[in-house]
Amino acid sequence: MHYSQLFGKTSKTVSADEESVNAQYLIRGGFVNKQMAGVYNYLPLGLRTLKKIQNIIREEMTAIGGNEILMPTLTQEESYKTTGRDTMDVLFHTEGPGGAKYVLNPTHEEVVTPLVQKYTFSYNDLPLAVFQIQNKYRNEPRAKSGILRGREFNMKDLYSFHASEESLNEFYEIAKKAYHKVYARLGLGDITVLTYASGGAFSRYSHEFQTLCEVGEDTIYFCEKCRIGINKEIIADQTSCPECGNADLVEKNGIEVGNIFKLMARFSSAFGFKYLDAEGKEQPVEMGCYGIGPSRIMGTLVEVFHDNKGMKWPESVAPFKYHLLALGKEDETFVEAEKIYKNLISKGVEVLYDDRRGVTAGEKFADADLIGLPIRLVVSKKTLAEDSVELKRRDKADASLVKISDLL
Amino acid sequence: MHYSQLFGKTSKTVSADEESVNAQYLIRGGFVNKQMAGVYNYLPLGLRTLKKIQNIIREEMTAIGGNEILMPTLTQEESYKTTGRDTMDVLFHTEGPGGAKYVLNPTHEEVVTPLVQKYTFSYNDLPLAVFQIQNKYRNEPRAKSGILRGREFNMKDLYSFHASEESLNEFYEIAKKAYHKVYARLGLGDITVLTYASGGAFSRYSHEFQTLCEVGEDTIYFCEKCRIGINKEIIADQTSCPECGNADLVEKNGIEVGNIFKLMARFSSAFGFKYLDAEGKEQPVEMGCYGIGPSRIMGTLVEVFHDNKGMKWPESVAPFKYHLLALGKEDETFVEAEKIYKNLISKGVEVLYDDRRGVTAGEKFADADLIGLPIRLVVSKKTLAEDSVELKRRDKADASLVKISDLL
Repeated sequence: MHYSQLFGKTSKTVSADEESVNAQYLIRGGFVNKQMAGVYNYLPLGLRTLKKIQNIIREEMTAIGGNEILMPTLTQEESYKTTGRDTMDVLFHTEGPGGAKYVLNPTHEEVVTPLVQKYTFSYNDLPLAVFQIQNKYRNEPRAKSGILRGREFNMKDLYSFHASEESLNEFYEIAKKAYHKVYARLGLGDITVLTYASGGAFSRYSHEFQTLCEVGEDTIYFCEKCRIGINKEIIADQTSCPECGNADLVEKNGIEVGNIFKLMARFSSAFGFKYLDAEGKEQPVEMGCYGIGPSRIMGTLVEVFHDNKGMKWPESVAPFKYHLLALGKEDETFVEAEKIYKNLISKGVEVLYDDRRGVTAGEKFADADLIGLPIRLVVSKKTLAEDSVELKRRDKADASLVKISDLL
Repeated sequence: MHYSQLFGKTSKTVSADEESVNAQYLIRGGFVNKQMAGVYNYLPLGLRTLKKIQNIIREEMTAIGGNEILMPTLTQEESYKTTGRDTMDVLFHTEGPGGAKYVLNPTHEEVVTPLVQKYTFSYNDLPLAVFQIQNKYRNEPRAKSGILRGREFNMKDLYSFHASEESLNEFYEIAKKAYHKVYARLGLGDITVLTYASGGAFSRYSHEFQTLCEVGEDTIYFCEKCRIGINKEIIADQTSCPECGNADLVEKNGIEVGNIFKLMARFSSAFGFKYLDAEGKEQPVEMGCYGIGPSRIMGTLVEVFHDNKGMKWPESVAPFKYHLLALGKEDETFVEAEKIYKNLISKGVEVLYDDRRGVTAGEKFADADLIGLPIRLVVSKKTLAEDSVELKRRDKADASLVKISDLL
């Protein structure tokens, strides 16, 4: 992509009400733009990043047998009365024709449960897992953490349906492993830890995945032996590591980047969703839910990977791999840079080419650091004199000359 | 994909309130499920189809320089007051914290105009085209045409921004050509015609793309020489073909599958969006908008391509290319069919494999006709005796035996 053709420009400043590092850098870098508190527009760089995150998650959910579907935003309020969740604070309400009451789904148990019920008759149809990648709506009183906590935000939610608690437990462990794979691929594997959290009325625990990070809103107690956490909300009941018994826990801040939960029959009961067992007897369906927010992950990546110059995207999710800069005033430099650009993209490499004329080297370097692609390539009169480009990784201080022929 | 692992089953019947052919077949085939009038869940078969339609549109919009972005559903009602459209009947309203008034965007002029304004300063930044593929919300009083007219529906909307009317006119013609390419790739090229429609207060005409179809809600007057239409809404003012003057027009029904519109400065004026020309003087920005609904396209394809047995998907958008059926009770048939399946998918071919045991040949044939994939492959004891599979195209009556070695 030619930078001159890309919609969205970098800026040196950002509105004073942006408190979070992720919003500041994402807005300054031209990745997102704030529509209003908690609601963002995704510009091309941001949307490319978001889609890469979504695709990693999609692949891992498909790998464990998830069927991708797409549920709507609008749903009858009636469905929330059925589960007793129509009084949730975070619900956005609206009205359809004739005053019909709708809500904007903040999560999809009230949609997915009766949906799967329609296609599930006997034990032969179970287990089953469906997921979607779609926007959620929550009327959050505070929405000050950039894209970490939105009123409209992107979510992957998978729901599993089982004929027995054993089947649920088995799948739950499979999903846990898939989540660890997702974080590893996102570059967050080393600092993202399974965390025990409240299980509500039906399970002893649920589990969160917490990315250890100073700015995290959550407090967890961390067992350094097992590398697992306990959420502060349950530390009064659980004062030692549930896996090894270690009581020497370390307080840490975390960003919740995932949550998995055994719902048991909480929602299936509400909708009267049962299946026929091998003897033809009706049995309750057991459910699990597994959430991860691609937009929140994007914000987390910025919070974790940045320096005072800008963002540092892991290669797996960077909107482009290379940032090619043509410096100087000579036409020849731009002609050669264009050739290198075309050669790289013809090989399927993703390149953002800063082809702007009349922009200083200092500005181009500053923009490259801000945007934070993994590898910067500089073409100038000086590098061309050696048939080379200068290559520098965003996360390393040193640059080196690479022959153009070696690069291609 | 193994059919036994696919979420969503076919059914022989559909609720009596589904009047439209598209909803009947899409629901019966397990492509979509109705949440409520005008609001649908997309099951895996439907979502795969929708994504293929979206990707064709995305490729053609990118090819004409469109930058893909993603705008939100929630927007301040204030933005609609700015343009005087806050009284539109179709707006869904909701409230945020402290009673803040939001609407669910039915289209995105009120979002995209101030968004592009933030990044556009001078003539150097124009022309510019941005698009998104995203859901829209319209509080339609009637929503009885299946996924042809939804309250929540999928839309590609592209917006172009120009320094002059000439630049807008030039891009408008480019967009027209891109739209024709899209319909050709969707299999609708021959029966989709450019149609002159009302241009509102600012332009003489807008243009629709109408797919000629008996069940279409729109009436157009068709010039058989030029193969263009005139929408009934302007026939009083325009009684002959605007291209060749032919007054011998034929009345036809059409489904509106696209709409392009010169907005001129209608929205840019409202938001005070101007640019600096080469002399440093402020000038109004001219805009165009270009819409096409992937979910409506999906419904249109069913209305156009079906028979009394089911749907007939064009290859470009079919959720899978091949429907492989294993018939009979012999284990060996299923073992061989599995091999054929694995071989085909290892070559990157998309195959839905009906691996169900204990389902009659009649039921499998009926399901294959209903689901409507382009090519049906049957494996049975009989075909295996000749080292063959039976191949039949959905749109042809005759079947033929093909050697397995030739197929692979």
